[in-house]
Amino acid sequence: MASSSKSLETKKRPHILTIAGSDSSGGAGIQADLKTIEAFGCYGSSVLTGLTAQNTKGVQGVHEVPAEFVTQQFKSVVTDDYPKCIKLGMLTNSSIIRALALELKQWDTINVLDPVMISTSGHALLPEDAIEAMKELYPLVDYFTPNIPEAIKLTGYSTTSQSKLNLEQMIELAKLTNTKTGAFTVLLKGGHTSISRREVLDIKNREKGDYDIVWEEGDDDLDTIEVLSLYSAYKQIPKSEEEQLVVDVLVNKGEVVALFVGKKIDSKNTHGTGCTLSTAIACAYATESREVPDFNLRMFKKAISYTKTAIASSYPFGQGHGPLNHAHLSVKRALPPPTKYNPHPFVSHLIQSNLPLWKSYVKHPFVVQLGKGTLPKECFEHYIKQDYHYLKHYARAHALGAYKANSFEDIKAFTDIAGHIARESEMHVNYCKSFGIDLPTLESTPESAPCAAYARYVIDIGTQGDILDLYMSVASCLIGYGEVGLWLQKQVEVGEATLEGNLYRKWMEDYSGKDFLGAVERGIENLERRIAEDPPTEARLARLTAIWHECVRLESAFWDMGLNLIK
Amino acid sequence: MASSSKSLETKKRPHILTIAGSDSSGGAGIQADLKTIEAFGCYGSSVLTGLTAQNTKGVQGVHEVPAEFVTQQFKSVVTDDYPKCIKLGMLTNSSIIRALALELKQWDTINVLDPVMISTSGHALLPEDAIEAMKELYPLVDYFTPNIPEAIKLTGYSTTSQSKLNLEQMIELAKLTNTKTGAFTVLLKGGHTSISRREVLDIKNREKGDYDIVWEEGDDDLDTIEVLSLYSAYKQIPKSEEEQLVVDVLVNKGEVVALFVGKKIDSKNTHGTGCTLSTAIACAYATESREVPDFNLRMFKKAISYTKTAIASSYPFGQGHGPLNHAHLSVKRALPPPTKYNPHPFVSHLIQSNLPLWKSYVKHPFVVQLGKGTLPKECFEHYIKQDYHYLKHYARAHALGAYKANSFEDIKAFTDIAGHIARESEMHVNYCKSFGIDLPTLESTPESAPCAAYARYVIDIGTQGDILDLYMSVASCLIGYGEVGLWLQKQVEVGEATLEGNLYRKWMEDYSGKDFLGAVERGIENLERRIAEDPPTEARLARLTAIWHECVRLESAFWDMGLNLIK
Repeated sequence: MASSSKSLETKKRPHILTIAGSDSSGGAGIQADLKTIEAFGCYGSSVLTGLTAQNTKGVQGVHEVPAEFVTQQFKSVVTDDYPKCIKLGMLTNSSIIRALALELKQWDTINVLDPVMISTSGHALLPEDAIEAMKELYPLVDYFTPNIPEAIKLTGYSTTSQSKLNLEQMIELAKLTNTKTGAFTVLLKGGHTSISRREVLDIKNREKGDYDIVWEEGDDDLDTIEVLSLYSAYKQIPKSEEEQLVVDVLVNKGEVVALFVGKKIDSKNTHGTGCTLSTAIACAYATESREVPDFNLRMFKKAISYTKTAIASSYPFGQGHGPLNHAHLSVKRALPPPTKYNPHPFVSHLIQSNLPLWKSYVKHPFVVQLGKGTLPKECFEHYIKQDYHYLKHYARAHALGAYKANSFEDIKAFTDIAGHIARESEMHVNYCKSFGIDLPTLESTPESAPCAAYARYVIDIGTQGDILDLYMSVASCLIGYGEVGLWLQKQVEVGEATLEGNLYRKWMEDYSGKDFLGAVERGIENLERRIAEDPPTEARLARLTAIWHECVRLESAFWDMGLNLIK
Repeated sequence: MASSSKSLETKKRPHILTIAGSDSSGGAGIQADLKTIEAFGCYGSSVLTGLTAQNTKGVQGVHEVPAEFVTQQFKSVVTDDYPKCIKLGMLTNSSIIRALALELKQWDTINVLDPVMISTSGHALLPEDAIEAMKELYPLVDYFTPNIPEAIKLTGYSTTSQSKLNLEQMIELAKLTNTKTGAFTVLLKGGHTSISRREVLDIKNREKGDYDIVWEEGDDDLDTIEVLSLYSAYKQIPKSEEEQLVVDVLVNKGEVVALFVGKKIDSKNTHGTGCTLSTAIACAYATESREVPDFNLRMFKKAISYTKTAIASSYPFGQGHGPLNHAHLSVKRALPPPTKYNPHPFVSHLIQSNLPLWKSYVKHPFVVQLGKGTLPKECFEHYIKQDYHYLKHYARAHALGAYKANSFEDIKAFTDIAGHIARESEMHVNYCKSFGIDLPTLESTPESAPCAAYARYVIDIGTQGDILDLYMSVASCLIGYGEVGLWLQKQVEVGEATLEGNLYRKWMEDYSGKDFLGAVERGIENLERRIAEDPPTEARLARLTAIWHECVRLESAFWDMGLNLIK
């Protein structure tokens, strides 16, 4: 009971504020940031510094937001809900940068700065005087994420081959950026150059232990996972020392902390990559546990991996550099989460998914006649004998559930129900005795086809599937008899059914009694808890629903069997 | 192979453009729209008409975007990628409205208009002359979604009790709004009043068949699902004719099409509800199949239900009217989707999740010595006899897989493998024969503890869980032996292992042969396909990973058994 209420609690999500420009095409700027924040399960707010009229082919226009209005937006947001992390992207001009520096000084927030200077399409997004003004911002920055051209521009780093830095030059540039800006931690992004696996291994051998080398594929060995290169759909280039990789360099206080090494991804859909990565860092900061010693590395690895998969799984949009697939981390729920207004979305779905079928079961003529006391005795007699057989298999199914369980809690729950069913069968024995049928006769009555069809289906599903399939195969009997019990009770109240002088009174009272309805309540609760804890995909839900429908159909056929004396 | 390539295809997503204002606090405006669009699995772009400095307590400032720049943004977006649907929200002023009317006339887009006039916090967002200008827009609008105060304002509808319309008045107002504006379809939102269940049932009886009454809970019967009222966590108010409901009225060409009836949700977190609903309508339009006859009803029902659950499952943010939970439709993926750069995220995860354990298995001293030919013959003899036993259970596990299958395709795949394993055992028989051990002796050799521990674990997991658990329990043997076969082949190439004169040559050649490696490839592919088609949740992945680790551990212990002659 505690756990099901718990699943209805609504927990605050980490608040991430993005301060950046708007990209009308939705692939970069605050649009990319908000999509990333959603993907990480955080809450996104945004302060706009400028608007662009933009698409995947380029930037067609820029509208600058007045610095005072930037400040006003910032104050509205932070005074109402303090952000766990702030990401700063395109800051448009020097007066906005100065206004923001003034504000940020007053707040002790964690700030990630992505120095958006040039769009993916090549449009200059920051004037020269603004680059100068950024110096006021750097001391307030916790994580700074320039790419190679930006770092070169900021530091004046000179090299003969700027277009293709090697790993040592990258490390030099990252350290210089850290020292010159004064930003606390710098991640120099390596996407503008290529580094061979050999270079990385050489550095690893020379600098051993001084810093971490974090491999995207989890391991630097060349021969531990040969078997995956077999995989046919995309024959992978076997790992070799010549393989060209991307390396991002993480530097703190002028010293290298880690190199992040991974595959080069060949895609034209890179619009908004920088925005996405810096926001992913803010989100990873807010969501990763800070209690583990390698918090920093895990956070950057998570953000880098999210961004790369977003590029690799991108889909077509527009005619130029398309956007990333920000939503790749999510799958669609097949069912809404439980809320106060819909605490049982799963069982509601099962019943609603074929309401006529459900009605044909719970308001079956057998039930209606039973409630009125007009049901012929031989029909009930036939039904109760077969139900006695059914209950034995139903108890066995619960014992099978105990076999399939992984915890003593589940074992206890299943064996309790099996015991409960054994007690339930006493009513059957007593009814039969009153009809002059003794136990050996009852036991030797042949199983009717409808009884065997249903009982053996339950046992087979229980054997074939997992514990949830088994739960599913026993659910409609439990829940349906609860519905019948409650409905008959209500029919008695409105004079449509009767207890007085009704031969089936004991049956009616048992299934509307506290004992049985308590079991129904626990059964529904248990199903909802399992589904809330491990929400099914569309495919899984379809399988579970099919089992439910089959059982409901077989239940209805079971009443038919009684009413029409089917053998 | 076809199916696995297929899962790597990246399909275009429906493009939804929102034309609206920015809400810095992230709960309304384009921020709410983009979050909704993400939740529906569509692609969101945005044209900004104005910025607000806003939080959950109110609107502190508005910055209007020049009409020409609104036009420029619009052109940038639509000329690059044609939207499947456009949602129009806060339009700020009359010149923006006129500019947009001019543009929209030139494009044959599906347009949803939410007439944002007043914020949830009570701030007026549209001047009087802009309300007048809206008339130019209405003829271009496919779906128009005013609330009661907005509809009253637009139509001049007069009633003695404006604050509390009854259902007949609502219907009258909806029809009037439709006729007066000329918008194609009008959804009058009923959240500002309450309608009793009795009123709805009365209307239903009077107007029977003229239009649809779509109940949120799927049914209007008061007594079909009694059993859910048992549910303990939140005792539900039993349905009664007095129950107060929310009714939204859908009108087309002046005639009622449907009433959408549902529960009243009591929450202060309603900031951005109108923005969310209208965007959800645009998304539902773009994603629901238009081939079913009740397309319109399904689309509105889906959008209304999304919005209501977003309110009901909202979490704390800010100090005033908090935002909705836009992400309630999604669950987080436990694994990234397969991409060209990572076509086997599942098997990679399994191996990487405990690499030292994997290495202890595939580079076990037994394997190293076997490759060099230095492994003592009695060790190999002990191993091959036990592996013969193991293979029998391994074949049985695959037969159990065929029992657990739901398709002839799976039955064939499992029985094929079982047959393959039977053939594999011939090598064992032949090795034993060459060691002077005949078949009856081999058969009567007692099962060693490590062999029994592993083989019976596989059978037990296969019986206990579903077909995927069973696949998991047989996977590490298949994939690991593939890895060993490939690695030994490579060791031969570099002179660290030898085939010449090696007693174990046949064994080495079998496990690096085309036949066996083909089976490994199909095995990996099958696992990845199943996982991509039905992505596991965190909980499910944890269970699958635990089975893998246990099997890898037992594999390693199996080599130990050979090397140390453990009985």
